[in-house]
Amino acid sequence: MSQLTHLDDQGHAHMVDVSEKAVTTREARACASIKMKPETLQMIVSGSHRKGDVMAVARIAGIQAAKRTSDLIPLCHPLMLSKVSVELEPDVEASLIRINTLCRLAGQTGVEMEALTAASVAALTLYDMCKAVDKGMQITDIRLLEKKGGKSGHWLAEDES
Amino acid sequence: MSQLTHLDDQGHAHMVDVSEKAVTTREARACASIKMKPETLQMIVSGSHRKGDVMAVARIAGIQAAKRTSDLIPLCHPLMLSKVSVELEPDVEASLIRINTLCRLAGQTGVEMEALTAASVAALTLYDMCKAVDKGMQITDIRLLEKKGGKSGHWLAEDES
Amino acid sequence: MSQLTHLDDQGHAHMVDVSEKAVTTREARACASIKMKPETLQMIVSGSHRKGDVMAVARIAGIQAAKRTSDLIPLCHPLMLSKVSVELEPDVEASLIRINTLCRLAGQTGVEMEALTAASVAALTLYDMCKAVDKGMQITDIRLLEKKGGKSGHWLAEDES
Amino acid sequence: MSQLTHLDDQGHAHMVDVSEKAVTTREARACASIKMKPETLQMIVSGSHRKGDVMAVARIAGIQAAKRTSDLIPLCHPLMLSKVSVELEPDVEASLIRINTLCRLAGQTGVEMEALTAASVAALTLYDMCKAVDKGMQITDIRLLEKKGGKSGHWLAEDES
Amino acid sequence: MSQLTHLDDQGHAHMVDVSEKAVTTREARACASIKMKPETLQMIVSGSHRKGDVMAVARIAGIQAAKRTSDLIPLCHPLMLSKVSVELEPDVEASLIRINTLCRLAGQTGVEMEALTAASVAALTLYDMCKAVDKGMQITDIRLLEKKGGKSGHWLAEDES
Amino acid sequence: MSQLTHLDDQGHAHMVDVSEKAVTTREARACASIKMKPETLQMIVSGSHRKGDVMAVARIAGIQAAKRTSDLIPLCHPLMLSKVSVELEPDVEASLIRINTLCRLAGQTGVEMEALTAASVAALTLYDMCKAVDKGMQITDIRLLEKKGGKSGHWLAEDES
Repeated sequence: MSQLTHLDDQGHAHMVDVSEKAVTTREARACASIKMKPETLQMIVSGSHRKGDVMAVARIAGIQAAKRTSDLIPLCHPLMLSKVSVELEPDVEASLIRINTLCRLAGQTGVEMEALTAASVAALTLYDMCKAVDKGMQITDIRLLEKKGGKSGHWLAEDES
Repeated sequence: MSQLTHLDDQGHAHMVDVSEKAVTTREARACASIKMKPETLQMIVSGSHRKGDVMAVARIAGIQAAKRTSDLIPLCHPLMLSKVSVELEPDVEASLIRINTLCRLAGQTGVEMEALTAASVAALTLYDMCKAVDKGMQITDIRLLEKKGGKSGHWLAEDES
Repeated sequence: MSQLTHLDDQGHAHMVDVSEKAVTTREARACASIKMKPETLQMIVSGSHRKGDVMAVARIAGIQAAKRTSDLIPLCHPLMLSKVSVELEPDVEASLIRINTLCRLAGQTGVEMEALTAASVAALTLYDMCKAVDKGMQITDIRLLEKKGGKSGHWLAEDES
Repeated sequence: MSQLTHLDDQGHAHMVDVSEKAVTTREARACASIKMKPETLQMIVSGSHRKGDVMAVARIAGIQAAKRTSDLIPLCHPLMLSKVSVELEPDVEASLIRINTLCRLAGQTGVEMEALTAASVAALTLYDMCKAVDKGMQITDIRLLEKKGGKSGHWLAEDES
Repeated sequence: MSQLTHLDDQGHAHMVDVSEKAVTTREARACASIKMKPETLQMIVSGSHRKGDVMAVARIAGIQAAKRTSDLIPLCHPLMLSKVSVELEPDVEASLIRINTLCRLAGQTGVEMEALTAASVAALTLYDMCKAVDKGMQITDIRLLEKKGGKSGHWLAEDES
Repeated sequence: MSQLTHLDDQGHAHMVDVSEKAVTTREARACASIKMKPETLQMIVSGSHRKGDVMAVARIAGIQAAKRTSDLIPLCHPLMLSKVSVELEPDVEASLIRINTLCRLAGQTGVEMEALTAASVAALTLYDMCKAVDKGMQITDIRLLEKKGGKSGHWLAEDES
């Protein structure tokens, strides 16, 4: 039967032993969305200069957060990401910005948490930059899209297959 | 007309000047939810020992993340939180755990981002602890519930009023 | 004759070159104790809820501190821990809580400092949580119990053999 | 009856509300000792150059750790230290180095944890610098010596009065 | 006669006591320059998209570094910046990018180090982004331009007056 | 034609994929200089005690900064340095202190940024320690001296060959 691996026999939190796991290329893709008022989205996407910096700040915040994941999530292993990308795509019709992240490394643990953390922090950064005009924004749909590598193999979210 | 205050006249990101703002007591409440399979939720809520540590790890991760907000969100001001709480409430019917956070300080800037960051990281930590059994969990509904203090005054989410 | 390896020929601090060292599995166990009044210990160990969170907070603080060792101890090498555990054991007779830590990795340097840092910070966290009722608590007996792997081989504290 | 203030009514960890506490000058003194072989101590205290850097590294590590206390100890409040000092005193007769720390600030919370953390990390840094020659060193007697300021007033360790 | 205030009577490093200093508005401006090949500069300034992100990444890195100054510079006091700006200005004739920073706060210590750190890290970030095409870039002329507030009063670099 | 590798096809910042790069020994040497008044330099170099701690603090700050490079420079990869050294050499005639740094690791990315960051932060730390007596100090000549290892091979600054 499957278990909560981050707890030992007594139910105590510990950092799982991965020292016997193989070093393989591991990759994860995740996403997040931030819903906002149409006029807030309009303010971000209009004007090339403005758009540039709002999007760039969120992208960079996401990349840096991926690198700090083991510092933020108590039982995550420290690891050396070999690639991180954070893409932001405005969806005017749905009045939201969709964030897609990708993390990769050659290592002993998966990078799902890194991809999810990058997406979350990029979304929070967008909230921060627009909160003066729209406090009701909502961050939603943070989830794993795909995971490759490691013993558990390939995993794909249902709507991605 | 309102503006994106984190960008200067040329659209460049900067950290807004708050040196002239009054020092007042400021407070923010935020929330997040993480949806999971019923059997995953069951695993967390059954067994007092287990529940203790899973919930405690998420709570502490959220509290610590609130303190690191200005390090994660590029244009946030550093500040000295005087209170942080993170509450987790399982909702068996909806098959999710709801996270409620509260941040407070006497200072020159609001603490919305701190409350939202605490909620997000607590949710990510729950994902991390349960991902071995349920990769399809989804973090959703991260938003501000209430904000008090400062020049912009009291703000309440529509469904909270 | 043996030397203080962290100083160069001129007595200047430097970070020792480990680039030629073999990557092997390395492990260290350390301990710490925190002595307190009997009634303070009683307050922690009685009541399952309370005990849960006090112990959990200390455990998690210790695990996270292990990951930050190279940030805290100036001449420590950054490394990627593959396992950390922090166990707390109340000893009612001696009126103390004993902390036992274990760190492991496959790498080029030992993990003694990580195990010692985890034990120290877990003890400091217990102090923090109980200081409102007992300022005279004393942290003592922080030391290495065992070290495995690497060129210097197996080392065992005298009272452990 | 006194309580563990870091736990709420349900026994859940939280960061205590200090927003109503007065801003006063607060000060704390703490200590730690590290016992070592006589020949290890001799190696540190002989040779002015060597001594300089070993002692300086430990002093600086202690000062920096004081500034990071709220990042290390989960329920500590972030605060702005206005003074930190870390003094190291070799005691050849007892074959140990004694560390004395002092922290001060004008703020809403005490600085006991900062003084204790500085002492602990200075001791760990000495261990790190000497571990190549003496793995059996023991860090001991980490405790608060004095606390001034704040509602709870003056507190002095018994052997300090 | 003036003294190196960061050393005590015995020449030991310590964090200077500022607890008696007045809380006043303090401000500092600093600069840095990074010299590069004309074709490297051309690559950055041509193409609006590219320019946007290169400049934005450097700006954000500088702002974040200002916030981490007390973590990087061992004897700096932690403080709460109320404003940070980092401006980059390409000088095609001199084949360099000039960086101008401004930091402000109401506090007990000056913010010179924060302004200088922001300028340095923004320059390092430009180096990082362009090093694949130009390893010979040189960062130069990092210095304080102006300092206002505090007991030592107004200071202006000679060529600024 | 060569490109700014840290930008993707659309000019967006990302962390370059190094997962296919070979793990080889990589090394970088960098330098920085800080110019000051002759009497400031005199104050540092005279008196063995003083010199000891001023130089030691700068050395340690440089070493620690090298370890935090990926946290400071947004698109740098996290990596595990196997050696860092920071040497400071007063040049009385030119009235400056010259800083030389060396970083090494076995990994998939070069360590130029680590060597440059160590040099910059060591120089900033010297500025901090002497700013009470000399605000006009200037940090200059931060540049790469040599780079070994990796696909791009050996690179030597012109005046070093």
